[in-house]
Amino acid sequence: MTTGTRRRMGVEERRQQLIGVALELFSHRSPEDVSIDEIASAAGISRPLVYHYFPGKLSLYEAALKRAADELAERFVEPREGPLGARLLRVTGRFFGFVDEHGPGFYALMRGGPAVGSSTTNALIDSVRQAAYDQIVAHLGIAAPPARLELVVRSWISLAESTALIWLDGRRIPRAELELQLVHDFAALAAVSAAYDQEMAELLGQVLAEEPADGPFADLLSRLAALAPPVVLPS
Amino acid sequence: MTTGTRRRMGVEERRQQLIGVALELFSHRSPEDVSIDEIASAAGISRPLVYHYFPGKLSLYEAALKRAADELAERFVEPREGPLGARLLRVTGRFFGFVDEHGPGFYALMRGGPAVGSSTTNALIDSVRQAAYDQIVAHLGIAAPPARLELVVRSWISLAESTALIWLDGRRIPRAELELQLVHDFAALAAVSAAYDQEMAELLGQVLAEEPADGPFADLLSRLAALAPPVVLPS
Repeated sequence: MTTGTRRRMGVEERRQQLIGVALELFSHRSPEDVSIDEIASAAGISRPLVYHYFPGKLSLYEAALKRAADELAERFVEPREGPLGARLLRVTGRFFGFVDEHGPGFYALMRGGPAVGSSTTNALIDSVRQAAYDQIVAHLGIAAPPARLELVVRSWISLAESTALIWLDGRRIPRAELELQLVHDFAALAAVSAAYDQEMAELLGQVLAEEPADGPFADLLSRLAALAPPVVLPS
Repeated sequence: MTTGTRRRMGVEERRQQLIGVALELFSHRSPEDVSIDEIASAAGISRPLVYHYFPGKLSLYEAALKRAADELAERFVEPREGPLGARLLRVTGRFFGFVDEHGPGFYALMRGGPAVGSSTTNALIDSVRQAAYDQIVAHLGIAAPPARLELVVRSWISLAESTALIWLDGRRIPRAELELQLVHDFAALAAVSAAYDQEMAELLGQVLAEEPADGPFADLLSRLAALAPPVVLPS
């Protein structure tokens, strides 16, 4: 028997539908402010039926988060072709696209929404950070990253997160400017590390050798040099 | 009446003693692993008496966190004298000293320990970040920071946190190197922002004009320039 025009869904199909509906609502308003009643209403089913598929809001929230995390990790995947700076810019652009689409949910998650501090939530956030780290290291083509390179990559990922959160709080700086700036921040953090460590200098040298003379890394270095007229280049 | 050699303490004195004992234990082991029994034992009182002063571990944890937050905020205070780079290096050194002393507690707090996500905990963390932000802006001498400067300062604070957390996980890079690197990271993030925004370039120019030619900022820029031989300085 079907009720009106609503067709019957299988269990997994209904779960996936609810996850999609919840993720959509959590993306536009803080998950704390979204009730199970609203989710039921948006899915066109009764409140008790939601509880039939998910024992509580936390389990539905975690399922929505899992789907969002998988989607974000997919956006990190980039063909290993062309200049590194351009690749990082494309991935950063897709990351900001994700942040843009899921603004309130992303903000609440990273700034202490419901379930923050739960081991499931923390493990998901860590898995996304690790996916980003693995991708960057793979693109750099370095099999065993030394501690200083790991620090640069992981701290840059954290910088990307905090830049996105600050951007969401008022969107006072154009998104495209921040995407480009983050690529340059990566180069800058790597360059600071290389300025004081020989191993990092050699790694950076290998990477820069394959960057085009008009690419973002070279562009940044010349702009930085232009900022500091008193700099004396070594002869 | 006194019991043995133990002297009677007033209510506030006893509360302060328990906070100190708890903070010491939370600083050396993850707060999750510290029991009220241990806190009672270390304070030389009974378990029920601990509950007389604090209704539960969370309230004692939050009180310990409040004391630690106040202590950290005090470490951000630096006389407004001498080159900015040297001031930031001293403050960064005191921050790392704090992280060093409270390692496991700091790590658990920032990485999802008990009470993470509680509004009290989040408000405390935010108040410390705000104290750091206010100090930096005051030292820069800028009354109304534009959005891009605010981004640089807040994202650098986040970078300092993540660098400290990565350092705690194995301590594979000498602390002093990271302190210096963070000062240079600040200059690098500001320089990237200045490379693409006229207002930031003017602000950075004002700051750099008062830095000594042999200070950390000038030193960094010449080291960066040395990394990139193909850079052509504008004539």
